[in-house]
Amino acid sequence: MRIAILGGGQLARMLALAAIPLGHRVRVLDPSPDAGAGHCAELIVGEYDDPAALDRLVSGCDVLTYEFENVPVAAAQRLALRLPVSPPPAALAVSQDRVTEKTFLQSHGCATAPFAAIADRAGLQRAVVELGLPAVLKTRRLGYDGKGQAVLRQATDLDAAWAALGNAPGGLILEGFVDFERECSLVAARGRDGAVVCYPLAENTHRGGILSTSLLPGPGLSAALQSEAERVMGTILAALDYVGVLCIEFFVADGRLIANEMAPRVHNSGHGTIEGCVTSQFANHIRAITGAPLGSPAARGASVMRNLIGAWPDPARILAIPGAHLHLYGKQPRAGRKVGHVTLIDPDPAALAALDALIG
Amino acid sequence: MRIAILGGGQLARMLALAAIPLGHRVRVLDPSPDAGAGHCAELIVGEYDDPAALDRLVSGCDVLTYEFENVPVAAAQRLALRLPVSPPPAALAVSQDRVTEKTFLQSHGCATAPFAAIADRAGLQRAVVELGLPAVLKTRRLGYDGKGQAVLRQATDLDAAWAALGNAPGGLILEGFVDFERECSLVAARGRDGAVVCYPLAENTHRGGILSTSLLPGPGLSAALQSEAERVMGTILAALDYVGVLCIEFFVADGRLIANEMAPRVHNSGHGTIEGCVTSQFANHIRAITGAPLGSPAARGASVMRNLIGAWPDPARILAIPGAHLHLYGKQPRAGRKVGHVTLIDPDPAALAALDALIG
Repeated sequence: MRIAILGGGQLARMLALAAIPLGHRVRVLDPSPDAGAGHCAELIVGEYDDPAALDRLVSGCDVLTYEFENVPVAAAQRLALRLPVSPPPAALAVSQDRVTEKTFLQSHGCATAPFAAIADRAGLQRAVVELGLPAVLKTRRLGYDGKGQAVLRQATDLDAAWAALGNAPGGLILEGFVDFERECSLVAARGRDGAVVCYPLAENTHRGGILSTSLLPGPGLSAALQSEAERVMGTILAALDYVGVLCIEFFVADGRLIANEMAPRVHNSGHGTIEGCVTSQFANHIRAITGAPLGSPAARGASVMRNLIGAWPDPARILAIPGAHLHLYGKQPRAGRKVGHVTLIDPDPAALAALDALIG
Repeated sequence: MRIAILGGGQLARMLALAAIPLGHRVRVLDPSPDAGAGHCAELIVGEYDDPAALDRLVSGCDVLTYEFENVPVAAAQRLALRLPVSPPPAALAVSQDRVTEKTFLQSHGCATAPFAAIADRAGLQRAVVELGLPAVLKTRRLGYDGKGQAVLRQATDLDAAWAALGNAPGGLILEGFVDFERECSLVAARGRDGAVVCYPLAENTHRGGILSTSLLPGPGLSAALQSEAERVMGTILAALDYVGVLCIEFFVADGRLIANEMAPRVHNSGHGTIEGCVTSQFANHIRAITGAPLGSPAARGASVMRNLIGAWPDPARILAIPGAHLHLYGKQPRAGRKVGHVTLIDPDPAALAALDALIG
């Protein structure tokens, strides 16, 4: 088949690397002529809302998918009249707005942090009284990697947070602070036939709001949590008549799962599935959107995925670590930018220490 | 780095898929505009002896490699004046001619079938007397997948064999028939620093002269055979000051290894290393030629690799087999042509039976 992908970053790149062995051809659309997916796929350079560029992207293609959730919903819906679009545009609409998302999650039996939509400065004041402090003020739309967020610890923090975020298009949300024990995520895929596979829960560590490390399977996550996460996931996938990979990020607090957000796409916390599971999240996304049977998500031993953020060390030093698999994204290093990741298979303490010494 | 590859078939395609995650860019040269590596690499369409095409191939590249051993040695030597060429052109010269190859193998302590170079019809007669029947008459150059061969079982077979092969450019070789118990191959990689890693011996089955199945690790191959194969491999890699992946195919006869041929490139019997080993042969070839440390060749459980020859069944039926990994090469099906392969990880009897039922 011919697969079109909106976005040409690392997720599209890894999707293409998984699609090609399955016999598919891949075309991506990205505003940057340097987009990393262009190294292994046909690259159309253009804006995501440029009708001519979108037309070139999907021309002759059998299915359209995307690598990020901020695709204009109207564009996705328009394209869905021409070819299958997976995941469904409805999933974009849900996940693009934190208020809609949390409302949706709660209505499908999934606990979230308490939250309130904030329309103005007075509304923020009321919400702080209602939810208490600490709390997190976030933009409803377009936040990622900790951007568009401010933690409110005391009443005097409100003015600065409002000054920074008050004008965000799409408005704001105040979320009650979750005093969590762990962070984890469930990556799952649903096929065109409704079959669902769930990966083991990954145990995640963030730094500065950016994912730093994912352990797969998460060593501190019980079978009961896995089972609860899979129950929630199944409900949400079915409700959206979803096709492709979906990720839900959770906090674990008092031994219970609290959903934080969902991503209707392959997810950074699933990168370790490339070497760490029988079938990677990328291969299963491609299988799903092309109507093929899904592959086993079972773990092949334990793995540790570490992001390379802002810069990468000498690749030779990474590759010298036993069991290290290096994935660079073809991006120029820049502060705070994810430029690659390393997955260690069945890591021993010496290998982990060597990786820590290299990438901190 | 920028890597140039002579040839744009499935081996170049899988090399590109391994090189891209390591941050490299790949350009291939192939006479066909439909070359499968063009789906994930920059494709230059041209002949292998066209100076202008070769110039475009290597322009701006840091290293040149190839996916087949019949690269014109003169072209490789000329290019080696401009950029590093790995494996070394000397390995091409050895492996392009069966007489040179067997002489080389024997001189490095590696047993081969008895053989004789054949200059004319009378020479064939003399060689048959010397080696006895059955024996195999082969072209010295350009044979692959059982092409350019004739088995001589009785004296009356000679005329037909001579009629078919006598005019082959480069002459002929007669090889004594090896009554083997098994066929196997050792894939190994040597880095720029001289470090060597050897994969487990693969146990191979051919049909009609074409590789059909490789079991990795070969279940019928002892540690003593592994050790002997590694000794021979180490000697040959060092003698050629080799960089990259080399494969030696062996017969096992009377419990001993008899080298059949060597291939100075990634090899079909190593395709199972993609999922079956910690580091694939493709990743290790790229690591070697770019001067990076080699990765572990250790097996991750047992795997079975089956070639798809001439046609492929419905991909959905293959992907429905538990643990099946499908690799299509982007080639049009044609009788006798390798169009893909399937690797089963930790296969159970039911999965093997399902694969047999699909691809026979």
